[in-house]
Amino acid sequence: MAVYVINPNASAAMTQTLERENRVFEGASGLCFEYCEPSPKSIEGFSDGAKAAYHLVEKISQLEISETALPEAYIIACFDDTGLDAAREITGRPVLGIGQIAVQAATMLCQKFCIITAMERSIPVLEINVRKYGLAHQCAGVFAANMPVLSLKEDPDGYDKVLTVAKNQLQDHAGEALVLGCAGLSHWTERLSRDLGMPVLDGVRLAIKFAQAMVDLKLTTSKVNAYRFPELK
Amino acid sequence: MAVYVINPNASAAMTQTLERENRVFEGASGLCFEYCEPSPKSIEGFSDGAKAAYHLVEKISQLEISETALPEAYIIACFDDTGLDAAREITGRPVLGIGQIAVQAATMLCQKFCIITAMERSIPVLEINVRKYGLAHQCAGVFAANMPVLSLKEDPDGYDKVLTVAKNQLQDHAGEALVLGCAGLSHWTERLSRDLGMPVLDGVRLAIKFAQAMVDLKLTTSKVNAYRFPELK
Amino acid sequence: MAVYVINPNASAAMTQTLERENRVFEGASGLCFEYCEPSPKSIEGFSDGAKAAYHLVEKISQLEISETALPEAYIIACFDDTGLDAAREITGRPVLGIGQIAVQAATMLCQKFCIITAMERSIPVLEINVRKYGLAHQCAGVFAANMPVLSLKEDPDGYDKVLTVAKNQLQDHAGEALVLGCAGLSHWTERLSRDLGMPVLDGVRLAIKFAQAMVDLKLTTSKVNAYRFPELK
Amino acid sequence: MAVYVINPNASAAMTQTLERENRVFEGASGLCFEYCEPSPKSIEGFSDGAKAAYHLVEKISQLEISETALPEAYIIACFDDTGLDAAREITGRPVLGIGQIAVQAATMLCQKFCIITAMERSIPVLEINVRKYGLAHQCAGVFAANMPVLSLKEDPDGYDKVLTVAKNQLQDHAGEALVLGCAGLSHWTERLSRDLGMPVLDGVRLAIKFAQAMVDLKLTTSKVNAYRFPELK
Amino acid sequence: MAVYVINPNASAAMTQTLERENRVFEGASGLCFEYCEPSPKSIEGFSDGAKAAYHLVEKISQLEISETALPEAYIIACFDDTGLDAAREITGRPVLGIGQIAVQAATMLCQKFCIITAMERSIPVLEINVRKYGLAHQCAGVFAANMPVLSLKEDPDGYDKVLTVAKNQLQDHAGEALVLGCAGLSHWTERLSRDLGMPVLDGVRLAIKFAQAMVDLKLTTSKVNAYRFPELK
Amino acid sequence: MAVYVINPNASAAMTQTLERENRVFEGASGLCFEYCEPSPKSIEGFSDGAKAAYHLVEKISQLEISETALPEAYIIACFDDTGLDAAREITGRPVLGIGQIAVQAATMLCQKFCIITAMERSIPVLEINVRKYGLAHQCAGVFAANMPVLSLKEDPDGYDKVLTVAKNQLQDHAGEALVLGCAGLSHWTERLSRDLGMPVLDGVRLAIKFAQAMVDLKLTTSKVNAYRFPELK
Repeated sequence: MAVYVINPNASAAMTQTLERENRVFEGASGLCFEYCEPSPKSIEGFSDGAKAAYHLVEKISQLEISETALPEAYIIACFDDTGLDAAREITGRPVLGIGQIAVQAATMLCQKFCIITAMERSIPVLEINVRKYGLAHQCAGVFAANMPVLSLKEDPDGYDKVLTVAKNQLQDHAGEALVLGCAGLSHWTERLSRDLGMPVLDGVRLAIKFAQAMVDLKLTTSKVNAYRFPELK
Repeated sequence: MAVYVINPNASAAMTQTLERENRVFEGASGLCFEYCEPSPKSIEGFSDGAKAAYHLVEKISQLEISETALPEAYIIACFDDTGLDAAREITGRPVLGIGQIAVQAATMLCQKFCIITAMERSIPVLEINVRKYGLAHQCAGVFAANMPVLSLKEDPDGYDKVLTVAKNQLQDHAGEALVLGCAGLSHWTERLSRDLGMPVLDGVRLAIKFAQAMVDLKLTTSKVNAYRFPELK
Repeated sequence: MAVYVINPNASAAMTQTLERENRVFEGASGLCFEYCEPSPKSIEGFSDGAKAAYHLVEKISQLEISETALPEAYIIACFDDTGLDAAREITGRPVLGIGQIAVQAATMLCQKFCIITAMERSIPVLEINVRKYGLAHQCAGVFAANMPVLSLKEDPDGYDKVLTVAKNQLQDHAGEALVLGCAGLSHWTERLSRDLGMPVLDGVRLAIKFAQAMVDLKLTTSKVNAYRFPELK
Repeated sequence: MAVYVINPNASAAMTQTLERENRVFEGASGLCFEYCEPSPKSIEGFSDGAKAAYHLVEKISQLEISETALPEAYIIACFDDTGLDAAREITGRPVLGIGQIAVQAATMLCQKFCIITAMERSIPVLEINVRKYGLAHQCAGVFAANMPVLSLKEDPDGYDKVLTVAKNQLQDHAGEALVLGCAGLSHWTERLSRDLGMPVLDGVRLAIKFAQAMVDLKLTTSKVNAYRFPELK
Repeated sequence: MAVYVINPNASAAMTQTLERENRVFEGASGLCFEYCEPSPKSIEGFSDGAKAAYHLVEKISQLEISETALPEAYIIACFDDTGLDAAREITGRPVLGIGQIAVQAATMLCQKFCIITAMERSIPVLEINVRKYGLAHQCAGVFAANMPVLSLKEDPDGYDKVLTVAKNQLQDHAGEALVLGCAGLSHWTERLSRDLGMPVLDGVRLAIKFAQAMVDLKLTTSKVNAYRFPELK
Repeated sequence: MAVYVINPNASAAMTQTLERENRVFEGASGLCFEYCEPSPKSIEGFSDGAKAAYHLVEKISQLEISETALPEAYIIACFDDTGLDAAREITGRPVLGIGQIAVQAATMLCQKFCIITAMERSIPVLEINVRKYGLAHQCAGVFAANMPVLSLKEDPDGYDKVLTVAKNQLQDHAGEALVLGCAGLSHWTERLSRDLGMPVLDGVRLAIKFAQAMVDLKLTTSKVNAYRFPELK
């Protein structure tokens, strides 16, 4: 029995990093990390998202009928919440999006949060999501580090670039907490929080904790109306 | 040179019907009708939508590099506006969603419109879209005929069922115009308008007309920010 | 039979320009251009708008009972959408506002549009309209060229002033498309689009195209509830 | 020196009634009551409103330059707030709309108010206004007595009809206070309040009181940006 | 019989100033000024507000059963509208908040207002209130003079600091009127209006006037649903 | 070290029940349950809330400086989220409201949730909160069991009454999940979920889980801007 953290892209490396960083949060239920071969290597923009959503749905469908996997809950480990509604339709288990939970949790710790993402092209995607979740009035801004997701860890100046962008933007927009808008930024959570002097929220670990909680509390996805299982055609 | 009407599902029959009914609207540019094999046979709910979005993106990508197809604009012929943002990202040509244009056009003819769709499970999808387009305050309700998309034409009582549901719901919610929330209802547009005594809007033909207009006016999808072309990874 | 493009102000010159520039878009139905003597010469602000709305309603009332005019649809050729709801009440034919259609069309080509108008005093009028149409979340800003409507064509530096303002404001507000917020700017549509590298939308030609489409599709203004014909008192 | 209560319609009788009923609220400044010949006899719907706005603007323009009238503030005595923004543009004196002040005052006395108007066709006009004023979330419903404005006083069963409609609708929509959505209903304010057991708000008297207050406090219409005086053309 | 102006903080000095400045607005009903010992000395932020709300409710409860006090209406003289809903629940008399009435009145005099408050920490409190009142779209900004409430009158440079901040912020945010977001700023109302060239609104005097109006009009707090009297437990 | 669950009312019995029911969720950090003597016995409406907020702030202030209590996080165990913003201001530890977390969690399991509370008078309080949290578009309705909080457990027909109300209202409003809008309903969570066939969310246990998660993740309340510590006066 396990919570499945599914990276909707096809990057084994990024998924291994996620796994390494989040093993510590393993609870009573186990944690399994998966990625979605042959999805795009990274999800940057709307069309990457559409492709990845397809592979994510495939992956969850397989896990649902697998005899060896025993999923208790799913986490979609891309801040775009790729395919979130679709995933909730094909399973009765809870499905958490790291974007949704991170912005919701931010509203418990501050009045105005900012989101930092990797590339500018993700900004409109995230702005649409924030408005969909009803939190536009508490989002002081979404901004980009202007670094490709896959280079975030390799660039030796990566951390400094991210910190500089974050500091300036938080100052300019009166942000009170920073939400990491990309799973590839997780490993800098504590360091950023210390350097910025404010809470920094990483959706992956929040989702792991909350998925475990939902499992413990026996909460499931509602099968009334919106998320009922697909009919046979 | 042609406007491509793309049915994101895999139903050849439904696409042929669309083609037969809409040939009359062919203008200076030609019209081509396509469907998306192996997409779901019909799009009923979120996971059908996620799958179909993938195939739609594939289809448009192929048309973009095809030497024989000469697309001038695209129309996504599913009222869910399946994969609309993703499609706009991978082409510079205009991409119209029949859902978006139908609800926008409705606001030019009335203050409060209703949407009728085939199955109840599409209601939340459409409510999310209407809110995304900023028109929740003019939408008096989304309701379903409770007939599977694929049976809409075969059921001999189909028209009467749709008419009865529409009449009752429009009355109850003070609707002033009816938007057809499913491409499979197009062929009843005039008949419903006559029987209901109000405008009935079919997104397919509205989109064909407006796509031709955009081509004539040399309007293209903006490649600044949100819809810029995907980068190579 | 014709689509009537009605300039709610009293400027014969501006109307002739509109006619000259838009004749090319004449379709199966003819096009007639009218202005509203003795309306204000230009519509700059709320009281000009209130006066012009009166004359516009008069003009449409006359056309409705005229034996020689055979209107099929009306276009209100002022970006303020002067008297739009009133006009829809007194005719069963479609009535399009160039402001409404331009901002709606912009949302088909980009995520965030800006509007440029002639004078600062029109900004609040347009902001109110954009919010009324439910599109405030996609409008990155309304700004003014600070040139009186009637001098837009005469000033030899006019184009450069408009271009400079537009370029700066689009940059500052991350606009992805430019909506021309004044019928007097139409003749620069293509030039601005080329110089700005993004779509530029002119409501007049969009409205002409879409009015012709509505005529072809036999769509009419709903006479249920909001826009029913006035009662005799 | 006086507060001018301007009925934007052309009904001398209705204006005399207004005057008779509201003389009691005369304060330090006097009260003058005017109507707008040749405006429509009553304002029922959008086109009546557009015509009346024109005559209202004319009336205020004349008063502004009159040597005998010494207006200190204006009240637009139609619940549609006919021509409100236009009026604020052409004078520096405060201009109050009875609709705006009534719904705002209602939010000081309850959480959810209902509006009763004379004819159904005014419902969309008022719904648009309520949303414009940002109070849609506190408006439990707008409904009509289905009696022409001009017959409200003559019909011997008029009061009972209004009471019955109000009682039923307030019950159905959980309304906590009733706003009179038509100046022609003012004379029943106290009686309705007693029979309904809740506050009943009449915009006319509220506006008179608040206009006097603004005069006392030397508050004027802002001439910065939105409401600056019209330029000479 | 009197309108009670209740300062929810414990500052006798500030309350005496309020009384001195507003005596001139005394009407047919008298005016009584009270403060809430042992409430916080000033209300700066959420926890001061929570404490003060308690003492305010206590104070009003005592006045309600007092045999000597004969309250006709209450005014909460803190711009945060401390305990406003609670106060409305425990009395049938009208209860006005100086924040609510000031922002509502501002929308009668301009399209876009700004609010100036004493300390930065009040900004989020006021932004939440403005949104609650449905006026976020007309609020161009809330900003702080960065001076503690209790030092506002003592600092010899106080006025200049406030004026400079106000001028700059109004310019930057295109504000058309200034709302004084702190009862301690009232005494500068006219001077600021003259120096800024636009209306400056002080909620205290507006509330006094409007409370007197409500008393005259026999308007009371609705006891249906939301504000019904507390039950005995 | 412990998570403190604070019942803002003064009911020892209700708090003991809470403790008994939620001990099972104790994690690595301990759980302490407190109530707020001399707060109201139950919180039903705005003025109970204002009083209880005061006592809650007192209680947390004491715990913050206590040498024996070692709070790691706080939970406000009233669905009104009594004093939530004030509490967040006076501590750096995370403060969770059972109302906020329950409605946010509901949006992870369904599209449209309903809230059931004890008494009708709590409905407006909760509607205001839901709108404040930006989730009005996903709340299908707030309704009451019409049973005093303190009698919820004693009434032998209590469960059946609650079930009947819930079933009917969920049906009428197309609710897909039920949120328990009163801590006194917690003990029926599983039973209601079974009988209703949908998820039933109890904010207390969700808050316990999520508070433990925040402690584990070292997340704290932001002390930048809105929630900074109160200044000394």
